[in-house]
Amino acid sequence: MNLRVRFAETDQMGVAHHSAYVIWFEAARVEWLRERGLDYRRLEAGGVSLAVSAISVQYHRSSRFDDELHVAAALTELRSRRVRYRYLVTRGEERVATGDSLHTPVDPNGRVTRLPTVWLEALEKHVTKP
Amino acid sequence: MNLRVRFAETDQMGVAHHSAYVIWFEAARVEWLRERGLDYRRLEAGGVSLAVSAISVQYHRSSRFDDELHVAAALTELRSRRVRYRYLVTRGEERVATGDSLHTPVDPNGRVTRLPTVWLEALEKHVTKP
Amino acid sequence: MNLRVRFAETDQMGVAHHSAYVIWFEAARVEWLRERGLDYRRLEAGGVSLAVSAISVQYHRSSRFDDELHVAAALTELRSRRVRYRYLVTRGEERVATGDSLHTPVDPNGRVTRLPTVWLEALEKHVTKP
Amino acid sequence: MNLRVRFAETDQMGVAHHSAYVIWFEAARVEWLRERGLDYRRLEAGGVSLAVSAISVQYHRSSRFDDELHVAAALTELRSRRVRYRYLVTRGEERVATGDSLHTPVDPNGRVTRLPTVWLEALEKHVTKP
Repeated sequence: MNLRVRFAETDQMGVAHHSAYVIWFEAARVEWLRERGLDYRRLEAGGVSLAVSAISVQYHRSSRFDDELHVAAALTELRSRRVRYRYLVTRGEERVATGDSLHTPVDPNGRVTRLPTVWLEALEKHVTKP
Repeated sequence: MNLRVRFAETDQMGVAHHSAYVIWFEAARVEWLRERGLDYRRLEAGGVSLAVSAISVQYHRSSRFDDELHVAAALTELRSRRVRYRYLVTRGEERVATGDSLHTPVDPNGRVTRLPTVWLEALEKHVTKP
Repeated sequence: MNLRVRFAETDQMGVAHHSAYVIWFEAARVEWLRERGLDYRRLEAGGVSLAVSAISVQYHRSSRFDDELHVAAALTELRSRRVRYRYLVTRGEERVATGDSLHTPVDPNGRVTRLPTVWLEALEKHVTKP
Repeated sequence: MNLRVRFAETDQMGVAHHSAYVIWFEAARVEWLRERGLDYRRLEAGGVSLAVSAISVQYHRSSRFDDELHVAAALTELRSRRVRYRYLVTRGEERVATGDSLHTPVDPNGRVTRLPTVWLEALEKHVTKP
């Protein structure tokens, strides 16, 4: 997905605050699903959320207000109780940041559950080897 | 309540971003209730939320990273379907910002409801004339 | 401008938090300038920022995760020391929120300054009667 | 440092959004310095910022609105061009989250620089073996 760095996302160092990338990764996951005909809202409506159990970000270059960034997401691991995504943030040809998120399917009470079979099957063909 | 301006709340102008004040007002409302022996979580657990229906902020001075601010909240209107708060943000003797929020009690489906009588009675004595 | 409500922008009431609208207004201002061939970054590079001196938002309907919203901005007042914008947030035909922001041109030290003549002239033809 | 989970920090899963922890870590770093008689503002005033070059968070339990959390920071690596912190978020006796951040001293233009000797010396005695 493409996005513009919002003014509110900058900090007094004049760059996008490092917490903004975590939010961009999430937005990129949602778009990644949509581009594959899947809808995260429908997953949640079915009673399953993908709770974030770990996240990591490596910041290679800073980004600034109004920069146009591309955030690529890739599904790198898919199991019934564990889903992993990898991210790459670029500005034109430059690598701005990379990252990784690990997810656990949970029910509406926050208890670990299994990813529904229909979702496993729909996602299977989109797994990228890391 | 007292708070420190977080680094993440600053923007590239080197001051706290104007959206942060809206979040501080909310934190001050929660503390205001707590100081009066009331618990916003209990209100929500009882099926009533105070949805924000309008907000206004006037910025008199900027605030900066690590500034220690005081946010005073005052309940200025209390009706079964309408609650209003007023805010004053200060840094020492300086007036930093003022504001106002209007709330509508809603049920878990977002439909307008009445503030429970027990809450009306508990809040009544805390109304400040505006 | 169009945007999708981000997951991170929701709160435990299941709707977009009211502070998110303030950030969307700002993003809409930046896009409004860009669509008219103007660049807020260039204004800031020239040593002038438009500090927010007041903001108001009226929330008519809630918006939810992944809703596609349109945020329209209109310049409603233009003076050398005072700029005002008006906003309308819609989801399809529905009016979701309206708002208003007042700005003061400031120099890099936060002191009130005059909007450069070249900006006044460029903006003049875009003023909308309120 | 102690903090209360803000309403604005929750998401529609009813828990604190995972990006909030990244911001809490930062606030804990600032407090960690203050408790040792050091002032991050003074470091920045001297022309050196500690840019975040990597961050990781492991989420062990969710936290909810108004939870009182403790965020402990520990300096685990100190070199002139590389500083590392470790974090532990707890609620009472429960471990809520852990994390790690890596920092690079940069000058006001974002170029890598050395941490001033006076800071190295002041921090040396506070390094915790990881």
